[in-house]
Amino acid sequence: METIQALMTRKSVRKYADREIGNQELLTILKAGMSGPSSVNSRDWTFIVVRDRKTLNQMADINGRPAEPLRAANVGILVCGDLERAFTKARDYWIIDVSIAAQNMILAAHALGIGSVWLGTYPQMDRVTKQAALFGLPETVIPHSIIAFGYPDEREEEAPKKSFFEEDRIHCEKW
Amino acid sequence: METIQALMTRKSVRKYADREIGNQELLTILKAGMSGPSSVNSRDWTFIVVRDRKTLNQMADINGRPAEPLRAANVGILVCGDLERAFTKARDYWIIDVSIAAQNMILAAHALGIGSVWLGTYPQMDRVTKQAALFGLPETVIPHSIIAFGYPDEREEEAPKKSFFEEDRIHCEKW
Repeated sequence: METIQALMTRKSVRKYADREIGNQELLTILKAGMSGPSSVNSRDWTFIVVRDRKTLNQMADINGRPAEPLRAANVGILVCGDLERAFTKARDYWIIDVSIAAQNMILAAHALGIGSVWLGTYPQMDRVTKQAALFGLPETVIPHSIIAFGYPDEREEEAPKKSFFEEDRIHCEKW
Repeated sequence: METIQALMTRKSVRKYADREIGNQELLTILKAGMSGPSSVNSRDWTFIVVRDRKTLNQMADINGRPAEPLRAANVGILVCGDLERAFTKARDYWIIDVSIAAQNMILAAHALGIGSVWLGTYPQMDRVTKQAALFGLPETVIPHSIIAFGYPDEREEEAPKKSFFEEDRIHCEKW
């Protein structure tokens, strides 16, 4: 898929077909995630790839209603920051670096025909703490987001993506 | 450009040709920025597009050495969060939402043959405060990042992008 088209047509996909995402596709998605920029090239991200249905359901239990799509997702990725790698002068750049990685994965998936939805976790600390506990993460590894992936359920009506463009968000030269 | 290729080949471009980015290309970049997901679809971003050389130099002065590319950039975009639009239950999602918008713009530019580099601003609060003062931003509008854009200077040796892939960043099913 052409890049501009991919950027403009990506939308959240929450209903999935019963179809496996191949390891090759998954690796492409993960490589795309690691191709983004990060502060001082710290690459302060780490990914937990989950296919196990029981674990996906536990992740959904923690994050509540918005995370229901995980229950039918083929793959869920818990995208985390690694504070041991973060830029020491301003560690909170990790939040931005990991956001970039997650968006790259979503776009790569979309280009491969795989749907996804971003499930917000950080900065809702109840979710962060419980996801960290579920996986027994070290203190320096912080859950940032969960991305649910799956081939779109073709029985679902595909509404075209609504445009989010708002001209009043653009300021020229000054506020 | 094909999406996976764009994701894998994007790299920071810091030297620019003396060539104007057309308004049409700029609009495509901004539309891509506004096509990403945001928490509860809050679209809590806003963009200040700068072509004025004096302003670009002032922005560079504030952000210091890493922002030197702005002095030769054709366009700089100050990407901001708009707290008035942010998700009220967890306002700091704005940091993630604006990161997604910025990365989308970088990828759109790359697909159009336009180079860019991400200039970290938030959470380095000295930079944030001074950029906000330069543009006289309301208190609810927070500078997040600056992206410098320009056609790549073809006199520069193009090193191929290094792979950032690290297998040890991937965990399967558990930590």
